[in-house]
Amino acid sequence: MEKIIGKIESINKGPNYCNTTILLEDKKHLNIKLELGQDVLIQMGKIFQFEIESFLREEVTQYKAISIKPIDEVGIDSDRMAELVQAFYEHAPLKISEIKKGIESFLKKISNPVLKAVTEEVYKKYINQFYLHPAATKFHHAYFGGLSYHTYSMLKMIDPMVDIYPFLNRDLLYAATILHDVSKVDEMTGVDGEYTKEGQLLGHIVMGALEIDKAAVKLGLAESEEVMLLKHLMISHHGMLNFGSPKKPQTGEALLLWYIDSIDSKFTELGVALNSIEPGEFTQSINVLDKMRFYKPNLKNDKE
Amino acid sequence: MEKIIGKIESINKGPNYCNTTILLEDKKHLNIKLELGQDVLIQMGKIFQFEIESFLREEVTQYKAISIKPIDEVGIDSDRMAELVQAFYEHAPLKISEIKKGIESFLKKISNPVLKAVTEEVYKKYINQFYLHPAATKFHHAYFGGLSYHTYSMLKMIDPMVDIYPFLNRDLLYAATILHDVSKVDEMTGVDGEYTKEGQLLGHIVMGALEIDKAAVKLGLAESEEVMLLKHLMISHHGMLNFGSPKKPQTGEALLLWYIDSIDSKFTELGVALNSIEPGEFTQSINVLDKMRFYKPNLKNDKE
Amino acid sequence: MEKIIGKIESINKGPNYCNTTILLEDKKHLNIKLELGQDVLIQMGKIFQFEIESFLREEVTQYKAISIKPIDEVGIDSDRMAELVQAFYEHAPLKISEIKKGIESFLKKISNPVLKAVTEEVYKKYINQFYLHPAATKFHHAYFGGLSYHTYSMLKMIDPMVDIYPFLNRDLLYAATILHDVSKVDEMTGVDGEYTKEGQLLGHIVMGALEIDKAAVKLGLAESEEVMLLKHLMISHHGMLNFGSPKKPQTGEALLLWYIDSIDSKFTELGVALNSIEPGEFTQSINVLDKMRFYKPNLKNDKE
Amino acid sequence: MEKIIGKIESINKGPNYCNTTILLEDKKHLNIKLELGQDVLIQMGKIFQFEIESFLREEVTQYKAISIKPIDEVGIDSDRMAELVQAFYEHAPLKISEIKKGIESFLKKISNPVLKAVTEEVYKKYINQFYLHPAATKFHHAYFGGLSYHTYSMLKMIDPMVDIYPFLNRDLLYAATILHDVSKVDEMTGVDGEYTKEGQLLGHIVMGALEIDKAAVKLGLAESEEVMLLKHLMISHHGMLNFGSPKKPQTGEALLLWYIDSIDSKFTELGVALNSIEPGEFTQSINVLDKMRFYKPNLKNDKE
Amino acid sequence: MEKIIGKIESINKGPNYCNTTILLEDKKHLNIKLELGQDVLIQMGKIFQFEIESFLREEVTQYKAISIKPIDEVGIDSDRMAELVQAFYEHAPLKISEIKKGIESFLKKISNPVLKAVTEEVYKKYINQFYLHPAATKFHHAYFGGLSYHTYSMLKMIDPMVDIYPFLNRDLLYAATILHDVSKVDEMTGVDGEYTKEGQLLGHIVMGALEIDKAAVKLGLAESEEVMLLKHLMISHHGMLNFGSPKKPQTGEALLLWYIDSIDSKFTELGVALNSIEPGEFTQSINVLDKMRFYKPNLKNDKE
Amino acid sequence: MEKIIGKIESINKGPNYCNTTILLEDKKHLNIKLELGQDVLIQMGKIFQFEIESFLREEVTQYKAISIKPIDEVGIDSDRMAELVQAFYEHAPLKISEIKKGIESFLKKISNPVLKAVTEEVYKKYINQFYLHPAATKFHHAYFGGLSYHTYSMLKMIDPMVDIYPFLNRDLLYAATILHDVSKVDEMTGVDGEYTKEGQLLGHIVMGALEIDKAAVKLGLAESEEVMLLKHLMISHHGMLNFGSPKKPQTGEALLLWYIDSIDSKFTELGVALNSIEPGEFTQSINVLDKMRFYKPNLKNDKE
Repeated sequence: MEKIIGKIESINKGPNYCNTTILLEDKKHLNIKLELGQDVLIQMGKIFQFEIESFLREEVTQYKAISIKPIDEVGIDSDRMAELVQAFYEHAPLKISEIKKGIESFLKKISNPVLKAVTEEVYKKYINQFYLHPAATKFHHAYFGGLSYHTYSMLKMIDPMVDIYPFLNRDLLYAATILHDVSKVDEMTGVDGEYTKEGQLLGHIVMGALEIDKAAVKLGLAESEEVMLLKHLMISHHGMLNFGSPKKPQTGEALLLWYIDSIDSKFTELGVALNSIEPGEFTQSINVLDKMRFYKPNLKNDKE
Repeated sequence: MEKIIGKIESINKGPNYCNTTILLEDKKHLNIKLELGQDVLIQMGKIFQFEIESFLREEVTQYKAISIKPIDEVGIDSDRMAELVQAFYEHAPLKISEIKKGIESFLKKISNPVLKAVTEEVYKKYINQFYLHPAATKFHHAYFGGLSYHTYSMLKMIDPMVDIYPFLNRDLLYAATILHDVSKVDEMTGVDGEYTKEGQLLGHIVMGALEIDKAAVKLGLAESEEVMLLKHLMISHHGMLNFGSPKKPQTGEALLLWYIDSIDSKFTELGVALNSIEPGEFTQSINVLDKMRFYKPNLKNDKE
Repeated sequence: MEKIIGKIESINKGPNYCNTTILLEDKKHLNIKLELGQDVLIQMGKIFQFEIESFLREEVTQYKAISIKPIDEVGIDSDRMAELVQAFYEHAPLKISEIKKGIESFLKKISNPVLKAVTEEVYKKYINQFYLHPAATKFHHAYFGGLSYHTYSMLKMIDPMVDIYPFLNRDLLYAATILHDVSKVDEMTGVDGEYTKEGQLLGHIVMGALEIDKAAVKLGLAESEEVMLLKHLMISHHGMLNFGSPKKPQTGEALLLWYIDSIDSKFTELGVALNSIEPGEFTQSINVLDKMRFYKPNLKNDKE
Repeated sequence: MEKIIGKIESINKGPNYCNTTILLEDKKHLNIKLELGQDVLIQMGKIFQFEIESFLREEVTQYKAISIKPIDEVGIDSDRMAELVQAFYEHAPLKISEIKKGIESFLKKISNPVLKAVTEEVYKKYINQFYLHPAATKFHHAYFGGLSYHTYSMLKMIDPMVDIYPFLNRDLLYAATILHDVSKVDEMTGVDGEYTKEGQLLGHIVMGALEIDKAAVKLGLAESEEVMLLKHLMISHHGMLNFGSPKKPQTGEALLLWYIDSIDSKFTELGVALNSIEPGEFTQSINVLDKMRFYKPNLKNDKE
Repeated sequence: MEKIIGKIESINKGPNYCNTTILLEDKKHLNIKLELGQDVLIQMGKIFQFEIESFLREEVTQYKAISIKPIDEVGIDSDRMAELVQAFYEHAPLKISEIKKGIESFLKKISNPVLKAVTEEVYKKYINQFYLHPAATKFHHAYFGGLSYHTYSMLKMIDPMVDIYPFLNRDLLYAATILHDVSKVDEMTGVDGEYTKEGQLLGHIVMGALEIDKAAVKLGLAESEEVMLLKHLMISHHGMLNFGSPKKPQTGEALLLWYIDSIDSKFTELGVALNSIEPGEFTQSINVLDKMRFYKPNLKNDKE
Repeated sequence: MEKIIGKIESINKGPNYCNTTILLEDKKHLNIKLELGQDVLIQMGKIFQFEIESFLREEVTQYKAISIKPIDEVGIDSDRMAELVQAFYEHAPLKISEIKKGIESFLKKISNPVLKAVTEEVYKKYINQFYLHPAATKFHHAYFGGLSYHTYSMLKMIDPMVDIYPFLNRDLLYAATILHDVSKVDEMTGVDGEYTKEGQLLGHIVMGALEIDKAAVKLGLAESEEVMLLKHLMISHHGMLNFGSPKKPQTGEALLLWYIDSIDSKFTELGVALNSIEPGEFTQSINVLDKMRFYKPNLKNDKE
């Protein structure tokens, strides 16, 4: 008897038989016989842990399921969950463990104690879902880990920009970038996701400001300049009223946060689209880029 | 020796004399002699309490100041303060005590316990400033009591509307109307007012949502449907993204709140403008009404 | 031989038979045999009066048509016609006779003799079609009686509003509200309706102004202030140039007319949409509400 | 004793003398002595008829006023009035008599009897004011005769256009062009003009449609296709809803009317602006041309 | 053996037979037997020259292909090509030879030597494609010869306009009109056409300016006022920034060029649409006319 | 006798004397006596070279001018001119020699030979004016060297961005950034500058594309993919049609060029504005930032 984890790829059922084919982490497939009625325990496209037993039929080794559990009832930790998600689904181009390491290195670089404390408090609350969640329903980064990968790419733009415009505050930018989309975890229900009721009626911008405030009240830091600035960056990060920000950016850091959010959401999508065509061709029209089609130049790049 | 309250109307000062003329509640004026140097204690247009002593000079009774205190250091209650403000400044067309009675009668009518508790909690925090504050800097209701008078007029529209459209929830409308502009108290600094730093960077819409949330957390009601709805009505009450609402109204109550807010802000201003001209004439252009000029019909009204 | 009225629900025809099934006012169905060729006299979904005769075939009572008349050639009065329309088609939530009684009570309340005379003159001309016509082709109130029901709901908002803003003229509001959409009768051809040529090229706003003018000329009142104001309210009742009003509202009454027209068109649609879902759900996107989806709160209302 | 007509250029008055200098049609000036008190009968910049008498003072011939009448109380006909207006004020580049002859030649070319009758009926009503009125308050053609000059320039574009696009109806274009701005006569009060109450609340577009309808009712032609089309061209001639047309052009003739109205209003202003600068220079910014500055090419034209 | 030219209308092919039916210039059809494999030489809807030989089968004369050549490899001149294109495809309402004669008559009328030289230089380069190319992919004039027909119609409007507004320079208008769309030849690939890479990334407006400049450099006229003006008219002929002009019209000629381009593109489409319906009807919605439907008046025109 | 260079700070002139005070490179001032009439040779605020001679008057050494030359007639090279401009006028925060070294280091990094050749060809033509010209008339970088300083800041953003989005072509970005504003040299006449005729009618975007094309034609590279891409980046670098780009960015490089141009123009202005206020304050409203006022956070930065 053996425990085995896989994603359901097909369910086959007749009047007197029932079996499923699952995808394993090593990309192999396995067919498992089920008792009649066990098929209601599984669902296409989801991950399950099976206890299986092998047996011989007509000189061929076959397997039957002893027990079946959805993966989130098995009790694995979030790192292992991240591994499984990346094994079975479309996912960010980096390993989630590397994204996490990268983001946390910026979190550690925050030297302002108020910004650090509040950012950590909110980050801790969302940490698990944050690394598995997609960034958006239909548009940019809509895959597992998309939310955190997007955040990490944005963080990488901060230092070069502050080097050119040194009047900007690095800590405030690190903190606000880490938190800016964190409430998307509650706004949408995941990759095949829909807006939640709260997401639809309040939105991640207001929900994010409420989270920052709640953490600050808890830590006794609610009246600080830092927290007010962090809330301002949160609510203004869509840049314009008609993109859902109730205030436009009114500090340099708020303005830059909008720019790097906007740049990363567009260029990541553009990269994906260009990747699927040949030089000299135009992409399909791209939603986040004003439905424009983009041309892939017929030039060699450095690395090519 | 006598205590007397008045608004400073002039300060007269020479090398060796100093006096002030003040306006009393009964619209009379009084001249008070000051010691040299006492003039730094007073300020044009503000209300002070004077201890005065009378004396005769050249057979005329005159008065000199024994002590001088700004009115907000005297220790009067908020009802008395409201009386003084209405006596000395441009103010709402109703007595503040009547506005207060009116608003509180709606507060009492809220039967849903969650809505009632949260509304009262926020209301109590702002009660004093709320009745003295103007509703806006430049546009509608910019006088003492303007904020509460505007709120009261809106409340009066709710019952007739719910009678015609009975699917609307009365309690939610009472609660949200009472609270919708309450954070203007922190957004602006009063009649001669400017935006505060927080007002400029966050705005009364987001500040109001944060206040509701804070009260709900304190009362243990943060996860209720009612509080989510109240926050939705708060953030959507400007109706459109480019008027500063991060979400558009998405419940019937939210939509009506926007309508009655919009109607009252426009019709109150219009009433003031029409009041200052004759039938058959056009008003000056009115800011809140798209800078249009309005015509005052040459017709008799019921009451005329 | 008996006269019977019904709506055609099916027409069945073979090489040597022909019959129709009709819906009766009591919601029962009746099958009537037709002579070959009589089927060209009837039309699916329309109301007809049949003279029928019963006969026995294989021991079953059957009916055959002696004569057939379209209902509008039978010579019934408009009250009876309204009853029939309400019996057979989707219709306003109130009986047309009640809507009519309600609207005429407001017409009677107009005390200004010029406004009363002109309003009655136009009203009389359109009275019959007015109570059967829908208010719009695709959007709000698109059912029999929709036009008059919409007008009645708007009239109910006038008194509460004038009570709060007493500078408004009640008579002008009653008159303009009764007439504001009256030319939709000529603009569109009914429920399954299309724009008429005149409706497409002139529109009910201009057609309405022409009707008022024609009535005023006939009554010798064309030069009065009242008629000019009524024409202004008519042409400005869409509120904004790009909604088809050649002038924006420039009197308080014109502004209110726009608001109550806009409120009723939106809230009636919203009520219908909310009625078809459960609390806690979102409606489908609603055309007249900017294609937004609305949430039905999970709260109890007074009446529930 | 002699009658003399002039425009008042100055009024000089002391404790015991009073005289006026007037401009005569031959551009000479004349000083006339007035009785004390007679100065209230005259007004700067207006035209008056004086009866004068000469007398000798210190061997110089001088004149005194026997009687004074405003020109419009003298009883001259409209042709003579047009001459005077062109003599004394800024005016159209053509003689009003020529403009009139030109416009009436197009009126005569209308062969459709309905269009001809209705156009003549409205034209007759406005004929006098039409030839003296400016076309606009601030923008294009704001001088005496501007309205008719603008109409005449537009008429000249019709034939070439119909030659290229022969599906257009010439008669409808002549008729609608002649009438399109006729109600400006009632919309504004003349050159130093302001909007009238009716002009402000209804506008020349709606007023024009009402005039056409009134004429058609009077002539028993109200139900004709021609009158409906004429009303459509009238109300759509501003081309777009947000320029005040309640309907957009929906026939070829309506579309062309908008184009030639728009072209003439812009090119006439442009011609005036270019006329005041040298080749190689830019004009001041021009209101009707989106506040753009225009360049005068350094090229020779045919006629130069 | 005979040479014959036709458009392929069908290709029929079995295991052991192959033939094609072609359309001839006289609208007759001809069936030609092909060798197995010859069918790869032809293409549906294109024009070919066949050498054919007749033979008798079952007493019927039949034809077989000896050789097959695409028409553009046959070596015919551009006039003959134009004839063929007009014979076989949807085409402009005038013969291409007449359009050409018309356009060249305007080219000859240019008296300014710089404008004439540059215009001829560019014109010569594009002359052949220019007369066969459609004016647009989806919208106006999308048929063979559409580009040149559109240009010719515009040219016809210039003289009447300059007669009314004589400050405009005739030569500049002739030159710019002839050249304004010439680069559409390189922007799109013909009637069934798509944008070329250059067309998509640069557009005919910029490409046209580059062509003018190149010709002027070659002729040593690059620094002249005329060439700068011609480039300005080229880049501003879409009239507004958001229609793709990097500068708005800033000379009278540039403004007129925009107007006549806009008028011809709309009225030509309108004429086509009205032509396909009866008086008293509305057209389908027309793309270049804001998707409006247009009404065809029930009036007689001159020529009818 | 000595040659001395200075900027004219005052000119003093009486009936029989004339002298000027000049500012020297070491910030000292010097008064020079002039012959009567020599004052017409100099101009306030401009730089001149004086030959002077000293003499004693009343025991004080004084100086008189022997000859006077405008600095651009003296024959100094462009490096020395840059030094003088930076000494006497408001200028970029870096030495022009450093900006030049920086920009040329990027020019050298271009490895694609076509891009390198064309970029160098255009660069060489503009090199002198490029380093002294301001970037804009009223808005960003309006000081000597502003154009090149802006270009240099943009170049510094390219490498970090390409590191994050490696599908972008570095060479194309270097080349297009160096050239993107080069035609501003011909579009405007310098710091106190106005638009030139060509600048007004064509604009630096089109002028830039023409320059690239001219250089490419000269080098025989006009048909290359690189040159087409470079022209596309040039014409699309304002990002949107209504900012004057006739095409929107349609390659990743074009999109990034727009972003870094936009970022640098905004953040440089913001830095200047924040520099002039204290932490905790708001700036004046800033033109290039939508006329918003920005808040300077009350936080310590790294370097402080």
